[in-house]
Amino acid sequence: MAITVVGSVAYDSIETPAGRKDRCLGGAATYFSLAASFFTDVRVIAVVGEDFGPDQEAVFHARGIDTRGIERAPGKSFFWEGSYLDNLNEAKTHATELNVFASFEPKIPEAYRDSDFLFLANIDPVLQRRVREQMPGVRLVAGDTMNYWIKDHRAALLEVLKGLDILLINDTEARMLADNNNLVQASRAVLALGPRTLVVKHGEYGATAFFSNRSFSPEGEYAEHMFRAPALPLEEVVDPTGAGDSFAGGFFGYLASSAAADDLNPAAFRRAMFYGSVMGSFAVERFGTERLQQLSRKQIDERFILFRELTHLD
Amino acid sequence: MAITVVGSVAYDSIETPAGRKDRCLGGAATYFSLAASFFTDVRVIAVVGEDFGPDQEAVFHARGIDTRGIERAPGKSFFWEGSYLDNLNEAKTHATELNVFASFEPKIPEAYRDSDFLFLANIDPVLQRRVREQMPGVRLVAGDTMNYWIKDHRAALLEVLKGLDILLINDTEARMLADNNNLVQASRAVLALGPRTLVVKHGEYGATAFFSNRSFSPEGEYAEHMFRAPALPLEEVVDPTGAGDSFAGGFFGYLASSAAADDLNPAAFRRAMFYGSVMGSFAVERFGTERLQQLSRKQIDERFILFRELTHLD
Repeated sequence: MAITVVGSVAYDSIETPAGRKDRCLGGAATYFSLAASFFTDVRVIAVVGEDFGPDQEAVFHARGIDTRGIERAPGKSFFWEGSYLDNLNEAKTHATELNVFASFEPKIPEAYRDSDFLFLANIDPVLQRRVREQMPGVRLVAGDTMNYWIKDHRAALLEVLKGLDILLINDTEARMLADNNNLVQASRAVLALGPRTLVVKHGEYGATAFFSNRSFSPEGEYAEHMFRAPALPLEEVVDPTGAGDSFAGGFFGYLASSAAADDLNPAAFRRAMFYGSVMGSFAVERFGTERLQQLSRKQIDERFILFRELTHLD
Repeated sequence: MAITVVGSVAYDSIETPAGRKDRCLGGAATYFSLAASFFTDVRVIAVVGEDFGPDQEAVFHARGIDTRGIERAPGKSFFWEGSYLDNLNEAKTHATELNVFASFEPKIPEAYRDSDFLFLANIDPVLQRRVREQMPGVRLVAGDTMNYWIKDHRAALLEVLKGLDILLINDTEARMLADNNNLVQASRAVLALGPRTLVVKHGEYGATAFFSNRSFSPEGEYAEHMFRAPALPLEEVVDPTGAGDSFAGGFFGYLASSAAADDLNPAAFRRAMFYGSVMGSFAVERFGTERLQQLSRKQIDERFILFRELTHLD
């Protein structure tokens, strides 16, 4: 089933111990949609500036991603500059230029309106909510956010959380959102804010899903409340940018795929967690979206098996 | 098969967000042997002072642990004082008093000499080596160490590593020992120093085993090189002290148990990793060794199943 994603399509200048890349194509919606495109149809809502050309659009089209919702505006695209020189787990931001995003008014193309799945990537919660309200008929809504919105735009974010089925954030964000350092207690507090399922990403240590008793369809039964997917210990992390968005794309993409969407049972969520980890592990192997652009579904499924062997007893 | 363990038997004064306990029974050999005692026979080599009485000895005897190798010396037992007020993952040490450990000369009781398994808990590598040399006939030797020995006693530690089959340390220690921040690269460097298997403990995120191609008996074949066991996200961590030693006790105890010892194949190592995580998860539920003293094998096996469900796809 088709996913509509709203979020940033941007340029990133990135410095890591492996080197430096200036103005590579990035943005949460870009990573998400490339990762999800291996599992299902993806439609993007974003705004770009005059610096976004046919070469960039071709990256989306090569993966069959619908770009009719990417609006062109006068000015420059969203730009982010950051480095990971001391710590691959945490970016140091040097510059954030909202540019055309500052006055973005998301519009949903008519052709997107039958999407059953909606992903609200990490942007201003006011925009997330506006998109959510324009798509009341979707079956499953997931979203991401970050420390900045949690800290300084809490009221708007809380409104978004009420309309989410699944929230995907990292450890620090979960603890900050709940104001509680214990992850189990923090997760319970976050689930009380709206989402039926919380996925907490642990970077190089994988991710944990916390399922409330509202996580699955009424027919589904689920006695356990947590599931932990590993990350693959990697020989070299070239560029961590977009790992979390790629996780979200693999996770939500798999849930929306024909293999899972008809019966979103606990087993489907577990496999989705593994596919999330798999896509995150690919994303960091090259700068920017390079690795996701060159990937095949066969390679994804081979790595899925590797992840299973990495953690399974038998 | 029996395990002989050498290490500290000590008193700890501990402060955590859950409260404070003064002078509880602790020490790496204590946690290790209590955890391992659920799987096989355990024999302890240590030195204690005049403050170690029948009540403390009874803790070992209640679990059938052989204490004939615990020497009594004039003076006080090893004492450690620490807190985890800001960070449950890392202790802040307030006092370390070696006391009787300062002049410890480990002696192996005759009755211990037929032990097939030897564990060198975290103590001065000079002592670890002296014990290792007195037990040349053991089948499998595992050991632990810490930042202090890695940094300031490197030459002595490197000698110990040459005689180890399995080294168990945490992330920071592995990176420090190899002088390399990438865990996969660091592990390869550590395996080149002697151990055939390296187990890296990640605290609340579980542990990863790195197997070299010398990890298993010559008959064994093993295509994969890593295995990751989860930790259980816990509602409350009362006292993290001894979690790593309890992991080691569960891990090595299981390998030495009748279920595994006759054929130390990859599947046995995987189950051992899970039992290590299980024992670590129990240890932190109460202050000191309290939880390990009240545990049953049935509870251990129930939690083992919980760990499997936490991470397995099917």
